[in-house]
Amino acid sequence: MINSQSVDEIIIAEWIVPVIPRNVVLEDHALVVKNGVIHDLLQKEEALQKYSGQITDLKNHLLIPGLINTHTHAPMSLLKGYADDLPLMEWLNNHIWPAEGKHICDEFISDGADIAFAEMIKSGTTCINDMYFFPELVAKRAINCGMRATVGLIVIDFPSAYANDADNYIAKGLDLHKELQDCALVKTAFAPHAPYTVSAKPLEKIVLLADDLDLKIHMHLHETSDEVKQFVKQHGQRPISKMKELGVFSSRLNAVHMTQLNNEEIDLVADHKVNVIHCPESNLKLASGFAPAAELISAGVNLSLGTDGSASNNDLDLLGEAKTAALIAKGRSLNAETVPAATALEMATINGARTLGIDKITGSLEIGKQADVVAINMSSINKKPVYNPVSQLIYCSNHDITTVWINGRKLLDNRQLTTLDETELSDKAMYWQKRISSDF
Amino acid sequence: MINSQSVDEIIIAEWIVPVIPRNVVLEDHALVVKNGVIHDLLQKEEALQKYSGQITDLKNHLLIPGLINTHTHAPMSLLKGYADDLPLMEWLNNHIWPAEGKHICDEFISDGADIAFAEMIKSGTTCINDMYFFPELVAKRAINCGMRATVGLIVIDFPSAYANDADNYIAKGLDLHKELQDCALVKTAFAPHAPYTVSAKPLEKIVLLADDLDLKIHMHLHETSDEVKQFVKQHGQRPISKMKELGVFSSRLNAVHMTQLNNEEIDLVADHKVNVIHCPESNLKLASGFAPAAELISAGVNLSLGTDGSASNNDLDLLGEAKTAALIAKGRSLNAETVPAATALEMATINGARTLGIDKITGSLEIGKQADVVAINMSSINKKPVYNPVSQLIYCSNHDITTVWINGRKLLDNRQLTTLDETELSDKAMYWQKRISSDF
Repeated sequence: MINSQSVDEIIIAEWIVPVIPRNVVLEDHALVVKNGVIHDLLQKEEALQKYSGQITDLKNHLLIPGLINTHTHAPMSLLKGYADDLPLMEWLNNHIWPAEGKHICDEFISDGADIAFAEMIKSGTTCINDMYFFPELVAKRAINCGMRATVGLIVIDFPSAYANDADNYIAKGLDLHKELQDCALVKTAFAPHAPYTVSAKPLEKIVLLADDLDLKIHMHLHETSDEVKQFVKQHGQRPISKMKELGVFSSRLNAVHMTQLNNEEIDLVADHKVNVIHCPESNLKLASGFAPAAELISAGVNLSLGTDGSASNNDLDLLGEAKTAALIAKGRSLNAETVPAATALEMATINGARTLGIDKITGSLEIGKQADVVAINMSSINKKPVYNPVSQLIYCSNHDITTVWINGRKLLDNRQLTTLDETELSDKAMYWQKRISSDF
Repeated sequence: MINSQSVDEIIIAEWIVPVIPRNVVLEDHALVVKNGVIHDLLQKEEALQKYSGQITDLKNHLLIPGLINTHTHAPMSLLKGYADDLPLMEWLNNHIWPAEGKHICDEFISDGADIAFAEMIKSGTTCINDMYFFPELVAKRAINCGMRATVGLIVIDFPSAYANDADNYIAKGLDLHKELQDCALVKTAFAPHAPYTVSAKPLEKIVLLADDLDLKIHMHLHETSDEVKQFVKQHGQRPISKMKELGVFSSRLNAVHMTQLNNEEIDLVADHKVNVIHCPESNLKLASGFAPAAELISAGVNLSLGTDGSASNNDLDLLGEAKTAALIAKGRSLNAETVPAATALEMATINGARTLGIDKITGSLEIGKQADVVAINMSSINKKPVYNPVSQLIYCSNHDITTVWINGRKLLDNRQLTTLDETELSDKAMYWQKRISSDF
């Protein structure tokens, strides 16, 4: 190997789907990683001649970019399956909020976040966009296990264990933003909860601060028809109209759910370059309805995917979310060509990176980006034959994800977590289950 | 162990959900199997005192009845992912039917069926309701691997590699029915393909024969709006109306898909005690629409689940289908209480047994029924905590199914197939992939 260039890892796979460029499936290629970055992507034979380094030869595997889950409430993993088959407001008011009110503490947040990260890494997620109380703890746990994250600087009008009033939430958020400003792995975004929980004054303040600090605004919007109706009753206008008035409605806005949109609002979303975060399974499970995914895509809107928290899904499996998104978009539009498999994969990767403003560093397997990569073993009989690996990835279930890299670091190796202890986390989950169940 | 009664196997699990009675979760119980039959279901300690036999102690596991997939075209596993993101008629006319026309032969049917059975056993299915050409080969492969099945005696007006005309299909079907009449594992049903492919005369003949032989009629019905429109254009009435006229519309009928139903038809379905086989993922993927599951359930209709063939899903994962069915029923009805997890599990088990007329022998974990049982390991972090195992089963993905019994025989043991060779089947899938891909 005279003159071969030294790199950290040469990952060989049967198929590599880089996502950018679109609709490309590379066979027998290698992804070359150096200093956490994708250094090269080339034919296997060529790679082995040109580079020397640790060789990871993944037969029967498909490599894709790390999945980006753009709407999570990670610590809610402790409430997975706690209250099912209930409508949103009953679920929130009578079950989730009382449980949170009683149990939220540092330990709840940290354990819940770790459990969510473990599940997400095992199912191929390498980056999340989180919104929860005590974002500094979620950030700390993400850094601890090596998960890429944008943590939401949560703002609600009401007092909680975390803060007293909107100004207090904002102040705490600004402190955290400052603390994280040199962190490459974890970024921040403003996260005013929703138009019905955050009033005009703090929203206007957030708009100014977001402009000043160049931050995204992560917000639940038009989740249910009831929420829209109530807002109209109180304010005489629909929430989107109010958000437009307050300056929230801009390309900084990452609007979550958006199941209730009329045609005019779809145009507004497109015109203002608002990113829409589509959480189809949560919207179905809570009976909020169907976001108009096909119409938004046709209008040119950037649509990414989120699982929402574990209490309303109940899994954090972004490939499953991509399948659901593709299927219901076809069913709703009565057009089987709507959201083809490749588009669903884009929604789960590069579109998520665009939503978070980090598409220069992740979201596709392009030279120069960070090595956020997922390897899926396609050898199980439920994946065979493989006419098109992207179809099998999106439309089949029960994926065998064997290896996950974030920044070139293996966080999952041969199906085992390397930075989190699954047995310990399982015990913690059982501890919380007992503690929370004792309320029944 | 003086006086303890000798049995074949004592299966101990953390949770047992027998499905009948409803909403029961037994903790630390044992299922006792003798001669392939559920001999007892009782507390673990009591079981260990009362019985002696092989003890299978499944810590962290949930036991449920074997899943019943009531609409499959098993051999189509060879066309999994062959033509995706296309509408039904283009998919059938320009892709699936030409590929079938060119490739169907004994080997295609047998290999395809084995591959489907392998995937289904690994995902917890213990019984299928199949419809395909050469049902005698599918029956033979089911018997070979120990899968419970009802094979459809397929009838179409048009000639195929299997038969020349409707009479010829019926005659071949009757031969197979006779051949299988003493087979406990594999039963038959008439399977006229659809109103648009089978004319009145053979349908009338099938009605008489089905009455005579006491057989079910398995048929695609009202799958797409286009199909209904075309039928009305040709016959001046909707397909259901025609089927009623011909005597097909009765409690013998297992009507597949039914996405296009007006209120009057929903009442007709209920009045005639027609069983509806709901295939939500196939209906979404082919953009056929949404079957009115909530309305059918409210009307008292027996609703079971099917994956349809691998070419339109693309998996044969019935738990995934149950999740999709539960979610879209909530989304469509805008009522989160519609199809709760326990109902979805019933649809995947006992309702399927009712559809096939075998609810006396399978579909629930009741004493006296055959031991068709599935064990799911709930210890992975994506299942924790477990407030309600039925919620985790239906709403979480990526299930770790470790053991599957049919008639008390382990067909999956520690995640390994015992009656099928997965490596050999994988090679066969690759062989067919190359052969079929060469048409492109």
